[in-house]
Amino acid sequence: MAAIYDGPIQDLITELGQLPGIGPKSAQRIAFHILSTEKEDVMRLVDALVQVKDRIHFCTTCFNVSEGDTCSICRDPRRDNAVVCVVEDAKDVVAIERTREFRGRYHVLGGCISPVNGMGPDQLHIRELVARLADGSVQEVIIATNPTIEGEATATYLSRLLLPMGLTVSRLASGLPVGGDLEYADEVTLGRAFEGRRALS
Amino acid sequence: MAAIYDGPIQDLITELGQLPGIGPKSAQRIAFHILSTEKEDVMRLVDALVQVKDRIHFCTTCFNVSEGDTCSICRDPRRDNAVVCVVEDAKDVVAIERTREFRGRYHVLGGCISPVNGMGPDQLHIRELVARLADGSVQEVIIATNPTIEGEATATYLSRLLLPMGLTVSRLASGLPVGGDLEYADEVTLGRAFEGRRALS
Repeated sequence: MAAIYDGPIQDLITELGQLPGIGPKSAQRIAFHILSTEKEDVMRLVDALVQVKDRIHFCTTCFNVSEGDTCSICRDPRRDNAVVCVVEDAKDVVAIERTREFRGRYHVLGGCISPVNGMGPDQLHIRELVARLADGSVQEVIIATNPTIEGEATATYLSRLLLPMGLTVSRLASGLPVGGDLEYADEVTLGRAFEGRRALS
Repeated sequence: MAAIYDGPIQDLITELGQLPGIGPKSAQRIAFHILSTEKEDVMRLVDALVQVKDRIHFCTTCFNVSEGDTCSICRDPRRDNAVVCVVEDAKDVVAIERTREFRGRYHVLGGCISPVNGMGPDQLHIRELVARLADGSVQEVIIATNPTIEGEATATYLSRLLLPMGLTVSRLASGLPVGGDLEYADEVTLGRAFEGRRALS
């Protein structure tokens, strides 16, 4: 959509349109909402943006988001140093933490291998992962990249890199989502569920 | 979704979630995008927000958005004082201006009558419209509220209020959208198209 507003409103629409998932129509709608919102409320949003950029950084060890140099998970002495879970994004750390199933450490890659988007192994924090594994304290690496084509490619790349180091490398199970319906499962997921079937005792 | 992040990230997600059309998942996605965006780019958005709140106000005559006390349309001496087009929102002014069909003045109501949303005539700039029409220089009022139930109710309310003042009151035509397909038109629109049919000469 061409620039149809003048001055500050158009500037705001343009900036909002840069955000993920915000198209020109949404940007326009949000900009007009901002116009008719109390200045105090807008300033709370402005402050939240500034605070995030000023106070939040990436953990120098695992690249999770962090208020200091090292994130709260890397600092926690009760977590298991022998297991590292490799994820694409900091959002995935939060998702896994919510399950309360995992008590090891994390390593955030910062994306996945995707030649289409110009993402190769060098753009990810893979070198730093290998460096972390060098001292031998880690015994298992759980690869928890997304079950997408790119996530699977990244998992394959990582397993080829890590297996020769003598580590146990595992991948999260694929299968039917809990509460899902067999009838509506796509054939790839259903195939994976067969492949990964477990003996009942 | 409960607050699952700490500190500044959760604050940002909460603030983003207040914007129209942004659900909790989008808010989270945008917040993480902001995290990995250059500070300079985020500051451009922050500045755009601040500028809009500092510099944009509502025109004291027509309630359109304006950088000064009076908007550029109300200031323009070439526009026709005898016709006023009444719209719900400032966005509608832009939509009508793009058609280049209308050379009169506007009046922005700031919404439409909608009891469900707590919007009655007193919440809209209707009193100010009546005051503008008092000096007799306006001959026609075009009611361009949306063709929705609320917009129609607002149009009916306004026409009952303005007709006794001896003004010509008109309503935008309803009918088939240009480029549309008769087969896919809903029955109300198609009915309106019949009702409003025009003799060809």
